Amino acid sequence: MDPAETRLLSVGTALPGPPVDNVVLGKHFRMDTLWQQWIETFIGTRTRHLAVDLATGEQRDTLASLGTAAARQALARAGTAAEDIDLLVLGTATPDALMPATVNVIADALGIDDVVTYQLQSGCSGAVQALDLARRLLSTGRHRTALVIGGDVIAKHYVLDADLRRVPPAELVNFVLFGDGAGAAVLSADPDAGDTALRTTRFRLVGEGRAPGQILEWFGPAHPPGPDIAAHEDYKAIEESVPLLAAEILDDVLGELDWKRDDIDYLLPPQLSVRMTEKITGHLAVTGAQHINCVGETGNNGNALVFFQLHALLDRLVPGDRVAGIAIESSKWIKSGFALEQL
Amino acid sequence: MDPAETRLLSVGTALPGPPVDNVVLGKHFRMDTLWQQWIETFIGTRTRHLAVDLATGEQRDTLASLGTAAARQALARAGTAAEDIDLLVLGTATPDALMPATVNVIADALGIDDVVTYQLQSGCSGAVQALDLARRLLSTGRHRTALVIGGDVIAKHYVLDADLRRVPPAELVNFVLFGDGAGAAVLSADPDAGDTALRTTRFRLVGEGRAPGQILEWFGPAHPPGPDIAAHEDYKAIEESVPLLAAEILDDVLGELDWKRDDIDYLLPPQLSVRMTEKITGHLAVTGAQHINCVGETGNNGNALVFFQLHALLDRLVPGDRVAGIAIESSKWIKSGFALEQL
Repeated sequence: MDPAETRLLSVGTALPGPPVDNVVLGKHFRMDTLWQQWIETFIGTRTRHLAVDLATGEQRDTLASLGTAAARQALARAGTAAEDIDLLVLGTATPDALMPATVNVIADALGIDDVVTYQLQSGCSGAVQALDLARRLLSTGRHRTALVIGGDVIAKHYVLDADLRRVPPAELVNFVLFGDGAGAAVLSADPDAGDTALRTTRFRLVGEGRAPGQILEWFGPAHPPGPDIAAHEDYKAIEESVPLLAAEILDDVLGELDWKRDDIDYLLPPQLSVRMTEKITGHLAVTGAQHINCVGETGNNGNALVFFQLHALLDRLVPGDRVAGIAIESSKWIKSGFALEQL
Repeated sequence: MDPAETRLLSVGTALPGPPVDNVVLGKHFRMDTLWQQWIETFIGTRTRHLAVDLATGEQRDTLASLGTAAARQALARAGTAAEDIDLLVLGTATPDALMPATVNVIADALGIDDVVTYQLQSGCSGAVQALDLARRLLSTGRHRTALVIGGDVIAKHYVLDADLRRVPPAELVNFVLFGDGAGAAVLSADPDAGDTALRTTRFRLVGEGRAPGQILEWFGPAHPPGPDIAAHEDYKAIEESVPLLAAEILDDVLGELDWKRDDIDYLLPPQLSVRMTEKITGHLAVTGAQHINCVGETGNNGNALVFFQLHALLDRLVPGDRVAGIAIESSKWIKSGFALEQL
């Protein structure tokens, strides 16, 4: 089949616990109101959802539980039974374990078996990579209905008793920028199955000679975490490169489809943070489109973000609507984008 | 293109440091000769290669360094330039970091850029999953030449000062069974590019309702490793299920190609350990084929094993030879297999 005929049947999402706003977060870490204002000004995130309960330290959700919940919602909305899924793709930077792959734990929970599954180790562009992989494999005729999941849970890196007054700014941001969550989508190779066409998905590694803009380490019994920082962000590199890469991939997506910027009705921009998203969209010069953002409420939940944007989008679409979405991975620099058209 | 026309152009492999035999291992961990005999009898592994230097504790290799070395060898043998690679797939259970994906670090080291890359989180069947994914994507016509890499480095889990006399048997086996390494292969969509046809690749998740047979955890600053065991194996479940799953997938592979067991000239059986491989091949009843094993010398280096078997195989092939290979993932139960034919 022509991969441009892939249909996006539905989207589901799942967030752990209640929203944690900057006041609650500030109180937990004993930070003053000035800190809360710093978050509002430089990050812009208003709330995030955490798999760990700040008050008790209990981890109430895992990537598997959130991915399963999002998938159930997507399956129910598509009217697709679990046994009709013949391809399962999960994108995540933070699997629950190294083995088994979380995608296979989710499959078991959903009653999906005797299928092909892939778990992509990926940063912020993972949702697009996963959608792209499903779409390419559907086009081979080998599969008919794919369940694509993206999500991240940062609980193992979220130190609840950290003294944020002693934490350097480059690490401080990890406590306010990120959140947990998962999303899922059902894709079909059958052009009669739905009215939302996934016209294209594209991604390219462009990391040659560039230092990683983000590093997230994992530890084992022989190399337990020490006093060093386990998560690193080079915000200068991110601020410089992401707007440029976002514009490049938008041009690629539009060029492939022969669409102009004016043809876009909805833009789903990268969701690193509210402030970064503003900088990126300023650079994209897509003036006529409505922008769909979620990061102010969900926090940056990595591989889940695109699904939250799609979730907010799908009910609004009317025939003829054209949508462009972009995600940029700054860890080793991947530009990714996709386009939808409502038939 | 017909995916059955995919060509396997070359294979490369890389092992860290010198072989570590059971005497050296026993001396390091202050175990007696009885323990060495126990390894010989119940595991059968004679040597393994470790990314960490037992004497100094220095980690001399990473998944990225081993994957890069194996890839360079494969590229040189295929006569393929790095810039001709337009698809890169890595299968591993033990990435160097959560972000960036190790596949993209390897790409940078090789000078491969502006391409599509995937890193599959996978256990022992990861090499077949990665070969399968590359083959399927080559068949779409979107890519022409793929570099497929598989490897594992267990250094973060290999506690050099562990007191093995106090370690329960289920964990003890981790110190003798596993090793580090990486392998790589170049695949081409061009049927004129080589004489070794990758006729099929297959894998299926069959984990529904089955507890994981292997668990490997990762840790972060908020959940550092405690006194509990970080790697679990259910050897009873593995011994019961793997021979059955291996026979099933062999039947699937042969059935798809309309080959009989007698048609197989070379069998590449699962490489969990020397003793397990013997049990599995006993169950497979492929009597006329030569068996290609490597685990006695390499140790179980996970996603690299199939590449070491292929490495030992390729130079022996003569026109008309038929090859079947099998890998079983016991973490959440995946059966996988592939077939080659020398033209």
